[in-house]
Amino acid sequence: MALRTHNCGELKTKNTGQSVKLAGWVSRNRDLGGLYFFDLRDRYGKTQIVFDKSEDLAQQARGLHTEDVVLIEGSVRNRPDGMINRQMATGEVEVTADRITVLSRAAALPLSVEDDQEPNEELKLRYRCLDLRRPRMIRNLEIRHKAMQSVRRFHDEQGFLEVSTPFLIRSTPEGARDFIVPSRIHHGSFYSLPQSPQLYKQVLMVGGIDKYFQLAYCFRDEDLRKDRQPEFTQIDVEMSFVDENDVYELGEAMMKRLVKDTIGLEITTPFLRINYFDAVNQYGSDAPDLRYKLRIRRADEYFKDSGFKAFESVLDNNGGVFGILAEGKGNLSRKEREKLEESARDYGLAGLLTVPFAEDGLKGIIGKLFSTEKQTELCKYMNAGSGDLLMFAAGPVNDTLIALGRLRRQLAQGWDLIPDKELKFCWVVNPPLFEPDEETGGLTPVHHAFTAPIDSDIDKLTTEPEKVICRAYDLVLNGVEMGSGSIRIHDPEVQRKVFKAININRDEANKRFGFLLEALSFGTPPHGGIALGFDRLVMMLAGESSIRDIIAFPKTNVASSLMDGAPSPIDDEQLAELGLKIIGKQNNKTA
Amino acid sequence: MALRTHNCGELKTKNTGQSVKLAGWVSRNRDLGGLYFFDLRDRYGKTQIVFDKSEDLAQQARGLHTEDVVLIEGSVRNRPDGMINRQMATGEVEVTADRITVLSRAAALPLSVEDDQEPNEELKLRYRCLDLRRPRMIRNLEIRHKAMQSVRRFHDEQGFLEVSTPFLIRSTPEGARDFIVPSRIHHGSFYSLPQSPQLYKQVLMVGGIDKYFQLAYCFRDEDLRKDRQPEFTQIDVEMSFVDENDVYELGEAMMKRLVKDTIGLEITTPFLRINYFDAVNQYGSDAPDLRYKLRIRRADEYFKDSGFKAFESVLDNNGGVFGILAEGKGNLSRKEREKLEESARDYGLAGLLTVPFAEDGLKGIIGKLFSTEKQTELCKYMNAGSGDLLMFAAGPVNDTLIALGRLRRQLAQGWDLIPDKELKFCWVVNPPLFEPDEETGGLTPVHHAFTAPIDSDIDKLTTEPEKVICRAYDLVLNGVEMGSGSIRIHDPEVQRKVFKAININRDEANKRFGFLLEALSFGTPPHGGIALGFDRLVMMLAGESSIRDIIAFPKTNVASSLMDGAPSPIDDEQLAELGLKIIGKQNNKTA
Repeated sequence: MALRTHNCGELKTKNTGQSVKLAGWVSRNRDLGGLYFFDLRDRYGKTQIVFDKSEDLAQQARGLHTEDVVLIEGSVRNRPDGMINRQMATGEVEVTADRITVLSRAAALPLSVEDDQEPNEELKLRYRCLDLRRPRMIRNLEIRHKAMQSVRRFHDEQGFLEVSTPFLIRSTPEGARDFIVPSRIHHGSFYSLPQSPQLYKQVLMVGGIDKYFQLAYCFRDEDLRKDRQPEFTQIDVEMSFVDENDVYELGEAMMKRLVKDTIGLEITTPFLRINYFDAVNQYGSDAPDLRYKLRIRRADEYFKDSGFKAFESVLDNNGGVFGILAEGKGNLSRKEREKLEESARDYGLAGLLTVPFAEDGLKGIIGKLFSTEKQTELCKYMNAGSGDLLMFAAGPVNDTLIALGRLRRQLAQGWDLIPDKELKFCWVVNPPLFEPDEETGGLTPVHHAFTAPIDSDIDKLTTEPEKVICRAYDLVLNGVEMGSGSIRIHDPEVQRKVFKAININRDEANKRFGFLLEALSFGTPPHGGIALGFDRLVMMLAGESSIRDIIAFPKTNVASSLMDGAPSPIDDEQLAELGLKIIGKQNNKTA
Repeated sequence: MALRTHNCGELKTKNTGQSVKLAGWVSRNRDLGGLYFFDLRDRYGKTQIVFDKSEDLAQQARGLHTEDVVLIEGSVRNRPDGMINRQMATGEVEVTADRITVLSRAAALPLSVEDDQEPNEELKLRYRCLDLRRPRMIRNLEIRHKAMQSVRRFHDEQGFLEVSTPFLIRSTPEGARDFIVPSRIHHGSFYSLPQSPQLYKQVLMVGGIDKYFQLAYCFRDEDLRKDRQPEFTQIDVEMSFVDENDVYELGEAMMKRLVKDTIGLEITTPFLRINYFDAVNQYGSDAPDLRYKLRIRRADEYFKDSGFKAFESVLDNNGGVFGILAEGKGNLSRKEREKLEESARDYGLAGLLTVPFAEDGLKGIIGKLFSTEKQTELCKYMNAGSGDLLMFAAGPVNDTLIALGRLRRQLAQGWDLIPDKELKFCWVVNPPLFEPDEETGGLTPVHHAFTAPIDSDIDKLTTEPEKVICRAYDLVLNGVEMGSGSIRIHDPEVQRKVFKAININRDEANKRFGFLLEALSFGTPPHGGIALGFDRLVMMLAGESSIRDIIAFPKTNVASSLMDGAPSPIDDEQLAELGLKIIGKQNNKTA
């Protein structure tokens, strides 16, 4: 029989007069002219407990420490009018205690569990059991829970089968970032932990499981950026007999449902589908943030023979000139504009030409060099009107675009152009299949080696592979890549050509992907899918800026767990049993 | 746009006349007097395709191989009356093809994908992509899928939070069966993969997450019995402010829902709750199978001074005499009874006294030695009637009970006493807290060191710990343990006493469980939970006898994956990067 009759977040005036039992943690107390109160707290909220039935009881209550765990038996009554707390779900009532049972005492706390005192990151991770008591962390875990249920229900309803793929898999030679697991039974042999279930889900397609999904736990042993963890979760989906549009529609319906189920917002579908090259050219990024404008426009032709030497020489060297329109910013002071130009240089641009559009036309050097007619044409092209600011930069095409992409983000933040709480998804589609591999000088797949080229480019695989466009797509949310996918190759002939283009010979292909290649030979349906970063999605839904805040027991940026002390040295005996020996120095980086 | 308009399991007479596109695998073909048919198969079923529109088309169809993947465009029509196949969901219709598009060719197959030809285990595991195409495997994966959704929905509806606990955790010194994972960042340090999330879920309780659940992936590096895998899944649940009855009720509601959602059966709750000692005494097992009777009864007093020397001498040596009633088996031939006695000896019993209850009383030596009155008393005690068979065995109490438990199971199987498809759950509760540790000669916990003793035995922890009864419970289904749980210790004082009883000093306790012990000091609610073996549950629901048949990509009994070849040797370079070296011989046991 449960100890409690109610939780600490549910008592209302309708419960007035009831005898109740509440269990929870002793929270803020108040001593008002001899009248003693404290809030009793649990995962669901707080309830005010009053000790006015006897002096003994009040004494007992005064003897409790913050975070002691107690059972309170008492009765519910309305608070006096002046004492009602509208901020609190239970703020209209209080419980007058008849009895206190101490269930467990709390030692002195190394951090506060109240939301208004955010502990430092190290304390949060070290004493996670306390950090988790804070309402914000509870809310984050609840959003994560809802997100998990939502994603699975959605796929279940759509006829997908949830299949668990293995954790102890074959280690591949390229697996530089694989975590490996020594086998005790087979000395000298190792499993690896999956970086993704990619090969296994493709085998499932060959096996006829035409709609697969899973919240897949994945592992990557790499130096960690702020928003990465050595173990992470992805929404992993694969389908047979589909093309890109099926995946887009599924992804859109999934996101619509997920956002609704977790934070109650309605988002608009379908999402904008932007060609990869357009994204780079217009936003200086393959993960464009569409919540604000500041789009980039190529403006070469306006600066050719313009007399503006700096830009002309860039154009002569195959560079490009790019413009950005900042609406209503024509009135920036010279000082503010100089600051902008400085930022631009910080991002690697040679300079930034800022041109206010005043009542009487464009200012500065453009105003001087360009004819009125040309000014009008340029403004029309840039969509600029009086009171706006035009910005131009020139340089090598790709570098300049990327720098402008960064500048664009900074401008939006600085000018507060980013709407609060807006979730703007888009698809960025059809990137190149390959990119140059800096190490080898050859080509390497942008997505992965099983990504299908577009049909019309199949011939180019042998003639000009660097120009082949592929059937891959990224899902982007507010300028952050949430995941990616592709239609896969299901024709062994095409697969061979792709391997050839990236210099993988038959032996190596077999060694690396043998079981998948063999499976593909037994009758493979056309198939494709997507993998979305679940942690980052939840983080954005929860409005958090670190994925550590939406994971119950995360690792630090050197992959340590401050709570349990992992990783740690192990017994020599245990190592010997695995047939292993440590060589070289032991280096234990501190977190 | 999806290639197909329908799947291969859904066309009915209501679709007659429709133009359809079906995609799938070419299955059994028939050539009837020039008329060519084949079945097109996918995950949902089969549809008969006829090629009677042109000789060209029929020729093209004849050129296809089994398991080629094709797209068929055609129209649905009713089959002629004589050709209707009631065994097949789509058996009333067929599709007459207008067009065949070959999507992918299949190489010669190493095994049949039809259910009627079960491949051998090695082929099944090696070519899992083909094995998964068999309807039985699809059904198994579907049951597993439904089980996963059912368990999560149930807990979600009950207000539980799903929390993912970490995979890369601290390795504990006792972790002899831990898989370990070397850290690349921290040379000489290791993570381990969790054998269970036990410590982490207890930290969650301290953190106030009062209802936690998870389908937890767990790992154990041990020699594998038939129904074990190195990676396995458990339904992991923990609750605060509860006692045993709350866990029983939750488990019962969960099982009721699970059985209903997966195989459509209604089971009766509550489950029988059997005391641990009663289970051992009455069924010779702590995991009794309640689908049949054959209960064991202690019969010492009837054989004391009975003149039956063999049993009398056992009793003189502190042994026991035990009887089993076999209803309606009084007419077994002498030969059959001798065979029974032989089986009993195989299970380690000194002998088995078989006593038919004939019309004129008990037969054999008992009939001779026992007075009519005593015979009547014994029969009454054993619940025996005319036509039944009584069996008696004597020996050291525990060994004899265990042997009789095995015999009991064999008899039930041999006599076909086990009802088909019946699911009989029970709880086996309150076992001893400790058992003798054969290695050290001391005590070791039966469940684990965090299991609470019953309140009235707390004092015995220091005086006679071997007699302490604990608040643990097993869930048993049809004689198989499905999992276990307990109410945990939340009082540090009691915890210290338990550690002392099993000879763990403070230092060792801190080293092994430090972060949990520290967490427990910060205000811990009373809590308890359970962990159920999900794979075995699904196996029993699916009516399979091997858990390999309900796991998409299982390992062999030497923990190898025949599909991907894991585990396998890795590059020296990769090992060196981890600061490791292989010592001793490499032994690669074959699967």
